[in-house]
Amino acid sequence: MLIVQKYGGTSVGSIDRIKNVAQRVVRTAKNGNQVVVVVSAMSGETDKLIGLAHQIAANPQEREMDLLLSSGERVTTALTAMAIEDLGVKAKGFTGWQAGIVSDAVHTKAKIEKIASERVKAALHEGYVVVVAGFQGITSEGDITTLGRGGSDLSAVAVAAALGADACEIYTDVDGVYTTDPNIVPEARKLEKISYEEMLELASLGAKVLQTRSVEFGMKYDVPIIVRSSFNDNPGTLVTKEDADMEQVVVSGVAYDKNQAKVTIKGVPDKPGIAAQIFKTIADANIIVDMIVQNTSTDGKSTDLSFTVAKTDAKKTLALTEGILKGLGAEGVDMRDDVAKISVVGVGMRTHSGVAATMFETLAQHGVNIMMISTSEIKVSCLIELKYMELAVRALHEVFGLAGGAEE
Amino acid sequence: MLIVQKYGGTSVGSIDRIKNVAQRVVRTAKNGNQVVVVVSAMSGETDKLIGLAHQIAANPQEREMDLLLSSGERVTTALTAMAIEDLGVKAKGFTGWQAGIVSDAVHTKAKIEKIASERVKAALHEGYVVVVAGFQGITSEGDITTLGRGGSDLSAVAVAAALGADACEIYTDVDGVYTTDPNIVPEARKLEKISYEEMLELASLGAKVLQTRSVEFGMKYDVPIIVRSSFNDNPGTLVTKEDADMEQVVVSGVAYDKNQAKVTIKGVPDKPGIAAQIFKTIADANIIVDMIVQNTSTDGKSTDLSFTVAKTDAKKTLALTEGILKGLGAEGVDMRDDVAKISVVGVGMRTHSGVAATMFETLAQHGVNIMMISTSEIKVSCLIELKYMELAVRALHEVFGLAGGAEE
Repeated sequence: MLIVQKYGGTSVGSIDRIKNVAQRVVRTAKNGNQVVVVVSAMSGETDKLIGLAHQIAANPQEREMDLLLSSGERVTTALTAMAIEDLGVKAKGFTGWQAGIVSDAVHTKAKIEKIASERVKAALHEGYVVVVAGFQGITSEGDITTLGRGGSDLSAVAVAAALGADACEIYTDVDGVYTTDPNIVPEARKLEKISYEEMLELASLGAKVLQTRSVEFGMKYDVPIIVRSSFNDNPGTLVTKEDADMEQVVVSGVAYDKNQAKVTIKGVPDKPGIAAQIFKTIADANIIVDMIVQNTSTDGKSTDLSFTVAKTDAKKTLALTEGILKGLGAEGVDMRDDVAKISVVGVGMRTHSGVAATMFETLAQHGVNIMMISTSEIKVSCLIELKYMELAVRALHEVFGLAGGAEE
Repeated sequence: MLIVQKYGGTSVGSIDRIKNVAQRVVRTAKNGNQVVVVVSAMSGETDKLIGLAHQIAANPQEREMDLLLSSGERVTTALTAMAIEDLGVKAKGFTGWQAGIVSDAVHTKAKIEKIASERVKAALHEGYVVVVAGFQGITSEGDITTLGRGGSDLSAVAVAAALGADACEIYTDVDGVYTTDPNIVPEARKLEKISYEEMLELASLGAKVLQTRSVEFGMKYDVPIIVRSSFNDNPGTLVTKEDADMEQVVVSGVAYDKNQAKVTIKGVPDKPGIAAQIFKTIADANIIVDMIVQNTSTDGKSTDLSFTVAKTDAKKTLALTEGILKGLGAEGVDMRDDVAKISVVGVGMRTHSGVAATMFETLAQHGVNIMMISTSEIKVSCLIELKYMELAVRALHEVFGLAGGAEE
């Protein structure tokens, strides 16, 4: 088998942990597998480098930022290769460009365009374990790029796709993907399997085990992704194509996102083009809007428009919105950030009705008011007051029968 | 003018120092010059990385070591470029391979083979200050190499040669090249000019301002090198081609080297091939021999052979020599490391006689015994007891009239 293993910052956070990683890699190799290892920078290292940059310049150039940040993964790549060799297995470290990871030129959040994997293939063929620096690529012009936070997950999945690997194992500090956050619901159960679609909804909703883009990439190229812990030998969670098995489970998990702020524009004239004007203004400032709800106009003249943005963008959004209020002919704007989004996710929803109804009913029973609702094929999300968040997560986890012993 | 400026580890040792470097670069650029900046890693950084490698593995692979160590210069390259941009001048950072520094594949001490300077030239042409990571290159196979200790000097001189730069300024923590170590002789005088040949003798003799290979490179491609301090605006020392001016000065400087050990093989049969056998054994172990003296055989049968090696190689050399003693038919071997080499250097020696005689006489007057003598066209070296070293340096500095006010 050809296996790609990705180790995050905590997994390579110290010399001893790198040695542990090397042992796991060597074990995998000695079981007769070809192994490609993708590593992040040692935990804290990237933040340290960002700190240096901001001490140097008020607005560090993004091109130089990428050159700077890419050094962290080089260090762990070299150290991990050395540690593997020290255990008697041949290993070779490659930077992103050496591994052929070609990206676009959008510095600090570049997108992978292709993987020219000839060198990696050749090294595997010669019997080497290949260690690849995650998080980084190179433009076709030869400039170094980074892939954004969590980009090493993407490097791993993309390399796995390019090599046609049998599995891409993402090692992290948790055992796998849970039905909800075990810190809130101790009975939360680890999932044995989950579909890419469900994982995408869970990840983008704030269950931050796997970077969203890496799941999209895995889905596109059909790469089986296994999320597991580098600190034990538990089997983890397989993220894979939807299968008949999965559809029998109506709800797979309950997610929450505390990083939300709600903006409401009151008395918006009910005429075409207004919403476009508002959201173009916000998008131009690179602010991402999540939920959007527009009430039906009762008087045929004006309505209220609500939407959510990340808490960190709340103030900027408020200012932008206030700036265009007059031009819109709206009455005023409100913002509140004591809100949270809770969501139930499951591919079974496609074939089972009543999930939304059960969710609303459960929240009502616990006296939780719903401010906004948004739905997709496999997800129902509600915006509620932040103080009810934990209560709501527990109640939903119970009502959908997610608790129970670990599956394995 | 096109100027290459190289800043060593202490000059970029902190955020504030990098900002100082940026100011100097910007000043040079604003005076109408094109500027290429070559930087080392922040002081201490390379040693820190070496320390990590040795914690990971008993014998870290040299290929991986180079990948590891090259990350230090990336950090300063990016930070320096950011600092320059922050002062309003366009700057672009390049790694060694991006700057086209191609080397052989001798990892950890690679030799530069060529500089493909198209990218650097293009960036200069577009009005950028170019910052290049020193100390690193890439093989034609695409593996990252480092150029050995002091390799950033070499990067700078090689880049200057490839670009046909008007000057290569080497910024360090001293004001220039002195007639001898000012810590030993406070009256030591800074030289305004020195020839490449003299600088080579002084550098290899332990006046460590400039890496030896960089001087050789500068001499080969006729690059004017200026050694100066990054902490003040003093003019420094110009290392250049020998000129008529220089020949009038008989002795330019007095150098010393405490890192010497003397090995004497006694009773070596006086027949052809013996010396070759000894030095081949030592060379095969990658030990560099410095001075070699063979006494004339008095009885026509056997003689004593003495040579010096670096102190760190002394024990190994002794063991090697003992191992071949029997085969040689020699009587025994002695080693002592309480020795030092002192040298007087000057291109004027070519045309002035009596320098060696004055040196021996001066040492004799101070009761210093000479153990070994070796000479070149522009240098006389004597091995003496370590305890007399400072005394000897002072006496020679005085007798050759090197003291006096700074030249400028």
